[in-house]
Amino acid sequence: MINTNARKIFELASAECVLTEPSDLRQYLTGISTSFGYVITDKNGTSFYTDARYLEAATASLANTDIKVYNFKGKLTDLLKAYKEVAIPLSQTNYPEYKKLVDAGLTVKDSTQAFIDAMSIKQQYELDFIKSACEITDRAFCDLLPRIKEGMTENEVAAELEYLMRKYGASGTSFPTIVAFGKNASVPHHETGLTKLRFGDAVLIDFGCKTGGYCSDCTRTFLFGDDKKHGEFKAAYERVLSAHNLVKEGVTDGISGKAADAFARDYLAKFGLDKYFTHSLGHGIGVNVHEHPYLSPRSENLLRNGMVFSDEPGVYFEGDFGIRIEDTVALIDGKVVSLTDSDKKLLIL
Amino acid sequence: MINTNARKIFELASAECVLTEPSDLRQYLTGISTSFGYVITDKNGTSFYTDARYLEAATASLANTDIKVYNFKGKLTDLLKAYKEVAIPLSQTNYPEYKKLVDAGLTVKDSTQAFIDAMSIKQQYELDFIKSACEITDRAFCDLLPRIKEGMTENEVAAELEYLMRKYGASGTSFPTIVAFGKNASVPHHETGLTKLRFGDAVLIDFGCKTGGYCSDCTRTFLFGDDKKHGEFKAAYERVLSAHNLVKEGVTDGISGKAADAFARDYLAKFGLDKYFTHSLGHGIGVNVHEHPYLSPRSENLLRNGMVFSDEPGVYFEGDFGIRIEDTVALIDGKVVSLTDSDKKLLIL
Repeated sequence: MINTNARKIFELASAECVLTEPSDLRQYLTGISTSFGYVITDKNGTSFYTDARYLEAATASLANTDIKVYNFKGKLTDLLKAYKEVAIPLSQTNYPEYKKLVDAGLTVKDSTQAFIDAMSIKQQYELDFIKSACEITDRAFCDLLPRIKEGMTENEVAAELEYLMRKYGASGTSFPTIVAFGKNASVPHHETGLTKLRFGDAVLIDFGCKTGGYCSDCTRTFLFGDDKKHGEFKAAYERVLSAHNLVKEGVTDGISGKAADAFARDYLAKFGLDKYFTHSLGHGIGVNVHEHPYLSPRSENLLRNGMVFSDEPGVYFEGDFGIRIEDTVALIDGKVVSLTDSDKKLLIL
Repeated sequence: MINTNARKIFELASAECVLTEPSDLRQYLTGISTSFGYVITDKNGTSFYTDARYLEAATASLANTDIKVYNFKGKLTDLLKAYKEVAIPLSQTNYPEYKKLVDAGLTVKDSTQAFIDAMSIKQQYELDFIKSACEITDRAFCDLLPRIKEGMTENEVAAELEYLMRKYGASGTSFPTIVAFGKNASVPHHETGLTKLRFGDAVLIDFGCKTGGYCSDCTRTFLFGDDKKHGEFKAAYERVLSAHNLVKEGVTDGISGKAADAFARDYLAKFGLDKYFTHSLGHGIGVNVHEHPYLSPRSENLLRNGMVFSDEPGVYFEGDFGIRIEDTVALIDGKVVSLTDSDKKLLIL
């Protein structure tokens, strides 16, 4: 499979050779996480140049592929002497690196679109890693709920949740867990802190983990006890959940990210809630927790079978409360399948 | 203080205006973590353009500074219409972004060195955040030790440690915790996994956390029970610890990263251990867990009062064991001060 990825990019990029440095793309090609290295593919095959820190691990994990591993110490341009043309991901290449290649006499092509096209359609082994991360995410959330007690800080709840994901086999989080109590949730990206949980608080948790280098992403909003002051919250919750579900029902192979976003946004607009839906509907999920395709009012990306993305409508009432309901979903045989799938009926702890 | 940073970069970069997009540099300038935004400084002051997700938090946290916060939806080049010249961090700017500015008729200067110079010398508030992260790191490690039991997986140990750091107030890890049992530690950057702890295993743990957006970084190696087969390990441990201490004794204001590295490497060479010291001695620590200055055999970076960096010699015997001893340290008044400082005498659990 690893072999397939490098070969696929080589064919899509149609250059004499393809040089890949950014760590997410390098991970996609090699299947392992490294903080330094270059992958070079030409018509004869693929070579992975890394340093002593990763040599042993890379050699072992790529033993049964056609990727050859080398200990690299010299200058990048030395690796490219045999070529006249090189494709690199320009959107992730800084200007001095780009210039170095041009100054070495190379014709530089852009491999960005090749990576976007290849990475946004998941292969079975990639889906399996994401499914596994999503299962851990669900299991950790269910086991977290009985541990949540009055007086705990947001940080403590995040600590419990991250602990459970790690314990169930995650290699780490997809991003720092967001836990927001009460009005803190009215900021879509609240910085988890030392606020203490009080009876009657609405709680928003946005979290995810990684397995095999692939991410999950999930958000749940619920009430910690019902102090009977949550009429507006409950009404809004039902609207956001319906918007979330309409996306799942409406999305099919070939529709645009813009059309997907509109399923949620147009529905919320009927109740005057669209002005509180201050972000886009979703984003692709894979090696990166945010990648192609994008689901937003302006996105022309087409949603295709094999893509994995988030469905996460939300509404935010400044200084009051916020609600977001998010699943990681896959588009399979023209239908949306939830990969995170813990209960979304309004939960009152 | 935030005000000072933007002003300092503006003066160092000496351009008509300074535009900063990369998230680490943006955090340095604004003091808050955001996934989207532009900071623009000119002679009249500093503006921070971000989107609805961060507007409320940014406005609140920058209320007492001279940074003005705006909700931004348009095109970047619209923000730059009044200028003829702009400084950007070229080393962190991709080629298409660079070209967009050039095509808009702007003269582009490089702010990279300005950021390196400013960020590598820590101000008191930055030192305080790092110290706080280091204190949490030490406390979590000490509290972890009695929780380590035979049969636990590397992942479970990492989960416990990350849980403790979060619980003690960290906003997250500086990087995914590395836990390596037995021969897994012979890979400097082992991927923490499902290997179970056995009596007599050597254990290597490389970990760190963040507070206020600033990182800590620490590595400890110890024995889980002494099965009396560790003569070579114990001898090597003492050498690595001496190398680690020699760096702390030798480094003073104004010496190079190369000279610092040599304190450890030359000492290990006396015992034929330098060929097993397969990485560099250390790296700067701040908003990023790896930043300037670098301490390596080739580094011309000068170590200066106010810098914070790692001192982390290590030796790795493929398929057998690995040892690394790392502290986060600060150079203050010409002397190295340990910021992480849990006991480094060989620990046998």
